[in-house]
Amino acid sequence: MKADCTPPPPPPPLGRVYLVGAGPGDPELLTLRAVRLLQQAQVVVYDHLVSSAVLEFVSPNAQRIYAGKRRNEHTLRQEEINTLLISLANQGKQVVRLKGGDPFIFGRGGEELQALAAQGIDFEVVPGVTAASGVASYAGIPLTHRDYAQSCIFVTGHLKNGTADLDWPSLVRLNQTVVIYMGLGGLPEICRQMMAHGAAANLPIAVVQDGSIASQKVVTGTLIDMPERVVRAGLKSPCLTIIGNVVKLHDELAWFKPPVALTRV
Amino acid sequence: MKADCTPPPPPPPLGRVYLVGAGPGDPELLTLRAVRLLQQAQVVVYDHLVSSAVLEFVSPNAQRIYAGKRRNEHTLRQEEINTLLISLANQGKQVVRLKGGDPFIFGRGGEELQALAAQGIDFEVVPGVTAASGVASYAGIPLTHRDYAQSCIFVTGHLKNGTADLDWPSLVRLNQTVVIYMGLGGLPEICRQMMAHGAAANLPIAVVQDGSIASQKVVTGTLIDMPERVVRAGLKSPCLTIIGNVVKLHDELAWFKPPVALTRV
Repeated sequence: MKADCTPPPPPPPLGRVYLVGAGPGDPELLTLRAVRLLQQAQVVVYDHLVSSAVLEFVSPNAQRIYAGKRRNEHTLRQEEINTLLISLANQGKQVVRLKGGDPFIFGRGGEELQALAAQGIDFEVVPGVTAASGVASYAGIPLTHRDYAQSCIFVTGHLKNGTADLDWPSLVRLNQTVVIYMGLGGLPEICRQMMAHGAAANLPIAVVQDGSIASQKVVTGTLIDMPERVVRAGLKSPCLTIIGNVVKLHDELAWFKPPVALTRV
Repeated sequence: MKADCTPPPPPPPLGRVYLVGAGPGDPELLTLRAVRLLQQAQVVVYDHLVSSAVLEFVSPNAQRIYAGKRRNEHTLRQEEINTLLISLANQGKQVVRLKGGDPFIFGRGGEELQALAAQGIDFEVVPGVTAASGVASYAGIPLTHRDYAQSCIFVTGHLKNGTADLDWPSLVRLNQTVVIYMGLGGLPEICRQMMAHGAAANLPIAVVQDGSIASQKVVTGTLIDMPERVVRAGLKSPCLTIIGNVVKLHDELAWFKPPVALTRV
């Protein structure tokens, strides 16, 4: 009768994907939940924008997969990333999909989740400090302020066929702060179009490289002179651009003094 | 000769104010730096929107000061808060000024820092997960998505003299997500004005109460029927409103199942 009592084989473990925001760079800006998940994950699939200091929280036993997404050099295509996440979850793995900033502000987090949902795979989302917040805080530039801006708008500055395909009239409203994610390459076009659509040539603008980490550089200027200032300062991607009168507060409120001096040109 | 060697009295300790974002409510969404500072602070000055679970990280030896800012019931006026922070710092205290969400997206963080800077007081800013990110993640609504929205704009929905004084044309652009902080009271006016300025009556909209905590409630609908749905669901402040086609993804991507069931009316 013993044979009848043999338990059935256990069901395969259930995989799960955690879509996690890594914040702007400083590992101190990870959330408690992000740290816990990084420490427990069996696999971490991470993007180019995730800082190496953040990856130090990953368990040494975990598998790390670099999914790239450097501009013009997607190491894995989006469909390949989706397939990879599905495959890992179907193997029963606990997977952290780690993205710079917040996973639901640019970065295609929603698209990856749709692919998982279509396969019935469990997932969770852990929001992060978006690059706009991180960079603004560390550069001393409030994104809203009663005297200068009652709203803020976030767009991406990636070029398509050499031009930034943005809704310019929506970017030149008064009393608004514009934050452009990854806009370094398109900066001359962005400044030119803003002015062509009615923005003042002396509207303040800041471009911040490596916001929140030791190599942070802040360059401020105006729409008319910023492209040249950025070249002179030798800024490199990744950068974030803030446009609006709130930039005036930088001189008064800048508090973060990284070992490398702030670049003022 | 001994008397000549008496050392001078030590200089008074240097006070410092840390302007810290508490995130959207779930204490797991605090940053590592925020937790460290809450544990070390001698005084914590906090707003209405900071959740009680977040305050549990404050040392039992620290002084806690409630600065209010519930709508229409400012417990301390802004000038009084500024004066309080200056006074505490001048006493040599390590002060955490704790705000819901991110301190540089609404909430007047910049104004408080200007008051400190004018007095030569040292400060630091610790960004947090802004309410828009937290609520969107926990409601399964990406704020950007290649198919639906290439930009997102954040505004406040506080009423002035019974009307929401917003730049309506900037809120009805195509392929944009609009996030309205604290817009419950003004919701009927917001929906009416959006439609009057050209938004489709069936444009999707979500109102989320208590985003990211156990009492979270998500109500979805369209501009035309949302005011009635919100009343039927009995939503209470604080709420955050998301308007745009990304709201369609909620049915597919909602993953957070708080003990209280999601309200669908």
